[in-house]
Order: sequence, then C-alpha cells, then structure tokens
Amino acid sequence: MSLKFDLLKTSNKARLGQLHTAHGTIDTPAFMPVGTCATVKALKPETVAGTGAQILLGNTYHLMLRPGEDLVEKMGGLHKFMNWDKPILTDSGGFQVMSLSELRKITEEGVEFRSHLDGTKIMLTPEYSMQIQHKLDSNITMCFDECTPYPATHEVAKDSMQMSMRWAKRSKTAFVNRDGYGIFGIQQGSTFEDLRKESSNKLTEIGFDGYAIGGLAVGEGQEEMFKALDFAPDMLPTDKPRYLMGVGRPDDIVGAVDRGVDMFDCVMPTRSGRTALGFTARGTVNIRNARHKEDHRPFEEGCDCDLCKNYSRSYLHHLFKANEILGVMLLTEHNIRYYQRLMAGIRKALKEDKFEEFKEDFYKTQALGDIEEL
Amino acid sequence: MSLKFDLLKTSNKARLGQLHTAHGTIDTPAFMPVGTCATVKALKPETVAGTGAQILLGNTYHLMLRPGEDLVEKMGGLHKFMNWDKPILTDSGGFQVMSLSELRKITEEGVEFRSHLDGTKIMLTPEYSMQIQHKLDSNITMCFDECTPYPATHEVAKDSMQMSMRWAKRSKTAFVNRDGYGIFGIQQGSTFEDLRKESSNKLTEIGFDGYAIGGLAVGEGQEEMFKALDFAPDMLPTDKPRYLMGVGRPDDIVGAVDRGVDMFDCVMPTRSGRTALGFTARGTVNIRNARHKEDHRPFEEGCDCDLCKNYSRSYLHHLFKANEILGVMLLTEHNIRYYQRLMAGIRKALKEDKFEEFKEDFYKTQALGDIEEL
Repeated sequence: MSLKFDLLKTSNKARLGQLHTAHGTIDTPAFMPVGTCATVKALKPETVAGTGAQILLGNTYHLMLRPGEDLVEKMGGLHKFMNWDKPILTDSGGFQVMSLSELRKITEEGVEFRSHLDGTKIMLTPEYSMQIQHKLDSNITMCFDECTPYPATHEVAKDSMQMSMRWAKRSKTAFVNRDGYGIFGIQQGSTFEDLRKESSNKLTEIGFDGYAIGGLAVGEGQEEMFKALDFAPDMLPTDKPRYLMGVGRPDDIVGAVDRGVDMFDCVMPTRSGRTALGFTARGTVNIRNARHKEDHRPFEEGCDCDLCKNYSRSYLHHLFKANEILGVMLLTEHNIRYYQRLMAGIRKALKEDKFEEFKEDFYKTQALGDIEEL
Repeated sequence: MSLKFDLLKTSNKARLGQLHTAHGTIDTPAFMPVGTCATVKALKPETVAGTGAQILLGNTYHLMLRPGEDLVEKMGGLHKFMNWDKPILTDSGGFQVMSLSELRKITEEGVEFRSHLDGTKIMLTPEYSMQIQHKLDSNITMCFDECTPYPATHEVAKDSMQMSMRWAKRSKTAFVNRDGYGIFGIQQGSTFEDLRKESSNKLTEIGFDGYAIGGLAVGEGQEEMFKALDFAPDMLPTDKPRYLMGVGRPDDIVGAVDRGVDMFDCVMPTRSGRTALGFTARGTVNIRNARHKEDHRPFEEGCDCDLCKNYSRSYLHHLFKANEILGVMLLTEHNIRYYQRLMAGIRKALKEDKFEEFKEDFYKTQALGDIEEL
C-alpha cells in the first residue's frame, strides 16, 4: 500500500485525480501507451514523454521471455534499460499467456505454457508473476488473474473469478512493498453484476493500491461494455484509482471516464500508427488512401505534434506508399499525442466543471472509422 | 556556375574547404547521408541534422518514380516536402536506372527503361534528368552519365566515357542557373589514366561548379580504386569541389581525402544500421552477436550520440533480437554520427596541420569487419 492517490474533483461519476509514484506523478484520467518489449514501438522514449504521456505499460509475458526478467534486473530495471525515468505499470502476464502462448494448462497453481518464441515450458503463478514484476522494477504491479473469456455462462464466470480472487490474495502476499510502488487488484466477473460485486468485495477485503476492471473489451462490444461499466466502477473504493484494462477507442475512453474510470491502456494508437491509420478529433483517417496524394494540409489541423506541424498529408502518404519507417514513426507519435490531448482535454474539462460540455462537443464531432471527407 | 567554393587549406593533396549554397554552407571534406526516397531511412530530419550532416543526397530515379518530380515541385520542392532546410544534392538517375530498372536500352538519346515499381516505360535523357532535378529543387544537380561497368576494356570504357561527355554537354545546356544552385560534371574513364584525363579535359572545357569522380567503387576493390585516385582527382580544377560518388567505408574515405577528394556519399551507415552492424573507431560491431546480451557498456565508448549516451549494448541487442524499429533508429543515428565525427576529425586535423598524425592514428586503430573483442 505504498502509492498515494489524490481524488481532486468529481463531475457526477467522472473523476479528476493524481497518482504519486517513486518515478513521478500521473494526472488522471490517464492513458498509458503500451511498450510491450521495453519500447513503445517506433518511438524514442523522449518522444513518448513529449506527447505528454506520464506512464507506460510493459508486458510481463513478453519481457519474461525476451530479454528475461533477470537480465532486466541486472541492467538496473526496466526504467534504466529502456531509458524511461517516468512511472511504469506492468501487466501480470496472465492475459498474454492465454492469447499468445501454446499448450496452456490452467490449474489452481497457475498456468503452464510453452513460449511462442522457442517452445520452452514455463509455469507462471501469482508468486512468479510478482517476482518478475519486482525484478522489472515496475511501479504498478498487476495481480495475476485469469481474464475470463467472453461470452461465459454465470457458472464459468463465477469459477474463473473466484480462482482469480484466490490468485489475488496470493499475489498480494507475494508482493514486496516499497515506497512509491504498489499493486493493483483486478475485478473479474464477466458482465454479471453479482459476480463483479463479489469480486470487488474480495479485492477490497485484501486491500490494494488501486483496482483494475478486467475481462472487458474482449469482444462484447461497446454497448455491453458500457452496461457493465454502469455498475462495475461504483463497486470499487472511491479513494483508489480505477483502471480499465486494454481500453480503447477514444469514444470508449470518454464513456468510461463518464462512468468513473481513471486509467487506460491500449495498443490502438501505436498499432494503428504502423498500419497507416491515424486518429483525429473527427475520426480516423487512412493515410494510404489516394485522396491524400496531393494534399498540402497537415494530418490534423490544429494538432501540435511533429507530423502535423512540419509535414503534409502528401508526404506522409508517400512515406507509407514507399514503406518508409519514418511514416510509422511520425504517425505513431501523432496518435499517442492525439490520445494525450484527449486525456488533457478531459482533465481540463473536469477541472473547470465543464465535462458535460466536453462530452457534448466530443460526441458531436467524433465519428468512427475512416472519415472519407476529411 | 552559381555555387561558391572556398579552398581554405591543403595538406599535401588533402583539402579543407567550404561550399556555399542557397540552403547553407557545407564544410569539406563532407559526408552526405543518403535520403533515397525523400527520407534518410529511420531518422527524422532533425536527428540527421543533429549528427552534424550539412547536406543530404536524394535519388532522382526513386523520386521520379515515386512520388514523382511534379508532385514534389507542387509541394514546394524536396526541402519543404521532407522538412530538410539544408542543402540537397541529387544524383542524375543514371546509376540506378542501370542497377534497378528493367528492360534498359541505352542509345545516344538516353536510357529507355521500365519502372521496377509498376513497369511504366520511361525515357531518361540528360535533358529530362536536369528537368527532374530542377523540379526537386536540388542545390547540386549531377550530370546525366553512364557509370561504366567494371571491368571494361579500354575501348568500351572510352566509348562509354565519350558518350557521357556528350551527355555532360547536353546536361550543362539544359541546366537552369540560379544563385546558390549548381551542377557537377562527372569524370569517367574506368581505371584508365588517359581516359580519365580526356574526360577531365572535356568537363573542364564545358565548365562546372564541381566535379565528381564516377565509375569507381563498383567492384574494383580498394587497391584498384586508390590506384585510380592517385591520378584522377589531380586532373580536376583545384578551385572546385571534388566528389567521389558512392564511397564508402571509413578507410576508403580517409584514403580518398588523402588523395584530394572533398565530398562523399554512401548508403553504408544507414543500410548497416538496419542490419545490426554499427561503426566504431576500432571497426564494425554486429550487435546481434550473443556476446552483447549482458553488456552494460555503450555501443561505442566516448561517442556522443543518443544511443551511446543513453543505452547499453544489452538493450540494443534486445531491440534487434525482438525486431524493434527503435533498434534500427538508434543504430542508424549512431552510424551517421560516427561518419560525421570522422569527417569532423579529418577537418580538424587539416585545420591544425595534423592530417598525417590523424591518418597514423586512424590506421592504427581502424580494423575491418566485425571486431570480436570489442
């Protein structure tokens, strides 16, 4: 219990806050870019910091396999290894073990799997996950849990959640307390209100520095996700940060903030940047589209990122057509900057008691998918 | 004739100078990073400038095919298009037409070929090459020539050189004069001294802002190249810059400066950066090698680039093993910085009348190929 969270203000359910860690403060609501393999793909760490990002997410599953937690520890921890001196949150490895590894076997003890890289057989348990995250020097350690697949029957969701809660207890026990470092519990229970409640009660009883909402954004769609978010965050302690894992699109984030969530992570801005898809306040734009070939305009009018200040759509289109790395670099940077501007806009609106107006403006302009007329 | 060149100092045949263009001054001896498709691969232009590079090379062949010279012109020229406000030199397209395109047919008129991208049939002539380079807004336009293949008989080399000289005359005639912009002739003649002399005489008679040495570094090896460089630069006017095209390794450059060459370009530092090969004062290092896995040290001790200041060999090794773009970005930047430090070292030595000591030091430490003990 060694992370301090200040809840500064609320607007209905939406919350403005600050989370303090050994490596700095995170203004919430916050979006965490994903740095899977000890790098946010195609960006230098100072570029990531320049977008306004105050915390990164690292993936335990990838890092334990390559380069390995012992190597990272030997090199002085993940911050030093990757030259990022701000806070880092690591996931527990549980989600990727299920989605990426081979020959998985789940038991009460943990998950046995084979590495997707070289076939090595590994047993990942709550205790081992805590040890890895400790060696990585993660500021925010996540409990080892099972992300219940969707859809799940009430019975399956209940069994899965209850095992995750036993794993949460073991995770907390194995976690080594340090000042400015903390551990988050993960609420499960699929879309069932009673299971989410049971999960929250168990987690609160154990006691964590923050609480994540797991098992959403796994294929249920925004409508179902928002239904669950209508009750799930309310069950968690108000004096601790709430983190919705793996979410999401800009409109997912605004809707989740509106329902009381403080933290987010998603590969969408980085992955989209590698596939020529960029975010704007009016929707997404595919820069490969031929209509951009002779377009003098910046990618997004009014954006202050390097791409939008110094290059034309025409040039970015050319870079992607020619498969030039610089295209990926510039568009990824823009996308992360877009997400950070979105979060800064949300925080400013909350600070000035204008979140309702912010939402209204956002939904007026924000469209989904490739906006042909942009 | 609108580029000013100041020859500041000489040390035996080696020369210290400055070439002034509409987009700034180039200190010579100079190395020009290659920005084939309107980008130095994997680097932002400000990063390229940060290495000390004062001029880039763009490839006419690639740019005419994609995005096309008309588009670049419409976008305000290559400087604006790619956000590089320093000088740009473009080659004539002649070399790449021969090495990359399909179904080439060389006649007195020019070269007919099919684009390697979409098969379009194109006729590239001296006049058209000049027009393209003008539209690109290149500060230094290169004459359209045939790079004589190696080895060549005296007869073949003579015919090829004489056609290139007729093309040089047509190039000069078609070139549009502007202040701070200029055109370089290209000496040919393979490794034959009499042909190099004949070529130089014809070029000097036409008159150019600078003179390139073409048709070397095409497979003849360093020994043969140096033999040709023992006489080729001496035949060119002393009051104009001399540019050895497509060269080379660090030891090629030092040897060529020693023989009176002022300017260089080569894809080696950028291409090597993408294949995990880095340059150091003691030789090249392949960072994929397992011996770097747990190495805390910087890539090159004493280097002031971002990679060497802020990351370990261990981290760079990890990035290449994980195929992360950041590895390519950091190592490319280091390699370009290495080349720029080399050139700055050469210029400093020339300025201080210590070029002989510089060479001695250089040859004492410089090794070729992967240095296992580094």
